[in-house]
Amino acid sequence: MNAESFFSKNIKDALKNDPPGSWMPTLPEQCIRLSSGFPAPSLVPVDQLKDAVASLLDEEGDLPLHYIGSPKVEKLTGQIQDMIKGHDIHVAEDELLITSGACQAIDLIARVLIDENTVVAIESPTYMEALEIFQNYTDQFISIPIDEHGLQTSVLEEVLEDRKNKGLPFPRLLYTIPTFQNPTGTTMTTERRKRVLRLASEYDFLVLEDDAYRELYFDQPSVPLKAMDREDRVLYVGSLSKVVATGMRIGWVAAAPEFIKALDWFKKDLGHPFGQATMATFLEKTEMAKRLNTLRDTYETKCEALISALEQYLPKQVSWYVPGGGYFVWVHIAGVDTTDMLTEALSKGVSYVPGEYFFLHSHEGKEYLRLSFSYANPKEIDEGAQKLGEVIKEVLKK
Amino acid sequence: MNAESFFSKNIKDALKNDPPGSWMPTLPEQCIRLSSGFPAPSLVPVDQLKDAVASLLDEEGDLPLHYIGSPKVEKLTGQIQDMIKGHDIHVAEDELLITSGACQAIDLIARVLIDENTVVAIESPTYMEALEIFQNYTDQFISIPIDEHGLQTSVLEEVLEDRKNKGLPFPRLLYTIPTFQNPTGTTMTTERRKRVLRLASEYDFLVLEDDAYRELYFDQPSVPLKAMDREDRVLYVGSLSKVVATGMRIGWVAAAPEFIKALDWFKKDLGHPFGQATMATFLEKTEMAKRLNTLRDTYETKCEALISALEQYLPKQVSWYVPGGGYFVWVHIAGVDTTDMLTEALSKGVSYVPGEYFFLHSHEGKEYLRLSFSYANPKEIDEGAQKLGEVIKEVLKK
Repeated sequence: MNAESFFSKNIKDALKNDPPGSWMPTLPEQCIRLSSGFPAPSLVPVDQLKDAVASLLDEEGDLPLHYIGSPKVEKLTGQIQDMIKGHDIHVAEDELLITSGACQAIDLIARVLIDENTVVAIESPTYMEALEIFQNYTDQFISIPIDEHGLQTSVLEEVLEDRKNKGLPFPRLLYTIPTFQNPTGTTMTTERRKRVLRLASEYDFLVLEDDAYRELYFDQPSVPLKAMDREDRVLYVGSLSKVVATGMRIGWVAAAPEFIKALDWFKKDLGHPFGQATMATFLEKTEMAKRLNTLRDTYETKCEALISALEQYLPKQVSWYVPGGGYFVWVHIAGVDTTDMLTEALSKGVSYVPGEYFFLHSHEGKEYLRLSFSYANPKEIDEGAQKLGEVIKEVLKK
Repeated sequence: MNAESFFSKNIKDALKNDPPGSWMPTLPEQCIRLSSGFPAPSLVPVDQLKDAVASLLDEEGDLPLHYIGSPKVEKLTGQIQDMIKGHDIHVAEDELLITSGACQAIDLIARVLIDENTVVAIESPTYMEALEIFQNYTDQFISIPIDEHGLQTSVLEEVLEDRKNKGLPFPRLLYTIPTFQNPTGTTMTTERRKRVLRLASEYDFLVLEDDAYRELYFDQPSVPLKAMDREDRVLYVGSLSKVVATGMRIGWVAAAPEFIKALDWFKKDLGHPFGQATMATFLEKTEMAKRLNTLRDTYETKCEALISALEQYLPKQVSWYVPGGGYFVWVHIAGVDTTDMLTEALSKGVSYVPGEYFFLHSHEGKEYLRLSFSYANPKEIDEGAQKLGEVIKEVLKK
């Protein structure tokens, strides 16, 4: 029995890529985790979720433990509608699909829209898990660089014009994280957001707006592309992972009903009544506005701790973007291979994610790394940055 | 913006089928549910799951609420390994993948193995959700009839020989529910099981064994195909939905490591740490052998109630298989269109699933219907069968 002989053609092609999770470093014990894009343990509402389960099961009994039938599961849709109404995104029930986190949402969108010869435009660098997902469907990509103001829309426009002149196919989808981008932490300006939508209309493509970090602003929120979208071209993906708990796996897509119908059609995990009803109960019992303010303050403090530690401990030739929110700081170290350097960093007791995993062509990312200030506490962050500084200095000496 | 113009080709084809869940009747209030393949409400361990969550979060704190890191999530794999060892299925860790119920398992297997021109062999009738899933990938099916001893392997062999003679492609996959089949409740004999494996070897196909009902035997367990599989041709799918709670969404695939690796690669919901860790804690605290005995006794009593009510209330020309376990009784009513009859049944206050949804060609199922004795209690079952008898008699009179 030759297992591979049974795989479908697309699957065989996809399996030639690096396996999922290749980017994730195996952490030694006692390692300061600047690699993990996880919420701070102190901000995970353990007791509140325990109470939510107790209160849900007292109220509904067996209902949330069947496939269907829990009123709280119905309720979650309304709660998410209300939540995104706050970002000026107004959707009806048939324009919203609850998913197992943003990743399942991205995978479903890819499943429905991407053939093996579909062109997808991505930011460069971009979220490595999304890149993994798209590479399961196609190998036709257009990479558009990011700068401190987000996606370089002038480059996008040039590329599109060039493809038009050459008779090459346009992308069917642009994947972007306009706010507190993963991995760069940058935010797209309003001007550029408008230009993205104008180009989408002109070149007839869709936009997958991944907005997982939106709530975690230090200063002020930005306007989502979806709120400016007059042609229903934006498929808007959000998540409660960063503001409640990743392990609850609650995300969503807001999009035109035709898209939601198709995404739902191929979503074959039959929903997650227990998780969804628990989340609905948690949201009922939680003052989210207050919770979000606490999260913003905490992450801002941690971000400041990281930035000031980087200034203090890192050699002069190292540079980074200062984020206005989110989880990440993107660091450039001229002349250093960050993949090679990781072994040393881990042995010193600090982790990061090497830049190569965020690029379609890994060599482009060799001098970059992603730091996360979300998981570690300020003291650990300071210590971690100090260790990182030592490692970088050693490597540069060689 | 024309949404459909953005869909990939396969997706456009799939969207021409009936939408998922078309089989599910909209129930009036006060309806006796003989349609629902749900565990009996009294057997859903509400309090035990509440305790499991409390004890899990007391013990592990924030760990099961992150993407990864909960020891209990690790533990669940071992618990399932032990559980299926009891059915003489011995698998290593890299031969087991935990999924969101059996449906996600079936979908992942389809995703990895089925191209748009792949031939899939199915039982006729078969589980409607599985049929929906396979139809999302291909329209090339071979339907093999079921009788009271399960899949008619002599017909399967004839079909395969015929295809050989005609130079037609063999199926890549046979989907079967050998034990307490959904919808017929029948169980494949050991002789036929052996013949399936012999044919799989001879004609080089794989077998998806869906074993969701295995534990719910009234008399004795049968030997799974997977336990007799010497060539790693069986992808074995199981689930805790029928023995704990469907809403927890815990299923699995046991198969050769090459298959598990591929299935895991395309599973993009990032696991469900909270649900999985809760289930692991529940299993630690539960004497499953005792629980299973209770389930078997209860479902046997309910099955007996249904069978004796059918004997009492249904006209002579109606026939059915008497199941040896599981959830379902498959009923044949010569000369009646069960899809048409459903409106009347619902207005009388009893539900069932019309037979047409379990067949590739719906006209084949017009004289059949599926009853479930899992959800309703014995008194309701008796009353439901009586109502059904009245409806059938009325329809036959017309």
